[in-house]
Amino acid sequence: MRKIAAATAVAVALLANGLVGAGLGVATAAPAAATKPMSLYSPSALVLTVEPGTGDDEGSVQRAVTLSCAPTPSGTHPAAAAACAELKRVQGDFTALAPIGRPMCTQLWQPVTVRADGVWNGKRVSHVQTFPNTCIKSAAMGGVFEF
Amino acid sequence: MRKIAAATAVAVALLANGLVGAGLGVATAAPAAATKPMSLYSPSALVLTVEPGTGDDEGSVQRAVTLSCAPTPSGTHPAAAAACAELKRVQGDFTALAPIGRPMCTQLWQPVTVRADGVWNGKRVSHVQTFPNTCIKSAAMGGVFEF
Repeated sequence: MRKIAAATAVAVALLANGLVGAGLGVATAAPAAATKPMSLYSPSALVLTVEPGTGDDEGSVQRAVTLSCAPTPSGTHPAAAAACAELKRVQGDFTALAPIGRPMCTQLWQPVTVRADGVWNGKRVSHVQTFPNTCIKSAAMGGVFEF
Repeated sequence: MRKIAAATAVAVALLANGLVGAGLGVATAAPAAATKPMSLYSPSALVLTVEPGTGDDEGSVQRAVTLSCAPTPSGTHPAAAAACAELKRVQGDFTALAPIGRPMCTQLWQPVTVRADGVWNGKRVSHVQTFPNTCIKSAAMGGVFEF
């Protein structure tokens, strides 16, 4: 859908004023677009991390994945498409990720801290949140931080 | 798929031992456990951005790419392998990226700001640097911020 729209825009641009340079850069897509794929949309590129503790100590980050949601979901996130869908639903607002039902978790204090840094739809994102334990984290954040 | 698997696991856990809290915590983690590739190495996952200006204004980020360097170079960076090689050479220290020869650039003031956020070898990275113009940026930062 997005690709079709982009291709249409390019075609219109070419027909309208023959902007060969700008137009071709996109039209030849695969190899050439590698150098400048960012012109037709606002980028959404994130690093998501999960680390034990409250995030105050300068501990080692055990898990980190990349997630890019434009033009297509990609990255080392194991379920990039689903994570992008969840983030699109809340327009990149990590505080609005809805809990999955009512979490059935203990209140055991084994804190875990999640972070999201990068860009969503062209706007800078920096979200940090600590949960009492992994179960509560998973219940609150859905699939975005499941990796 | 994931939800179904999780639900099944939950049902089994409930039936088996009724450990509602702990059981759920483990059960919901089960599907994700299949996709845990991060245990054998420290992660290196970054979001790199380039934006016009000095970075003080809350402007829109025009370009952003993801770059993951472990276990293999990947991401939306157009030259992920080369960028990872450069970063490995300086062990993730963005201030140590060597300039390519002597830059032949004007001193025209059209500032551009680069940022790197994420994790390098398990350690959190947050680097911001402003250059007088794109030519000087490219000369100083090599291929890492060429996208």
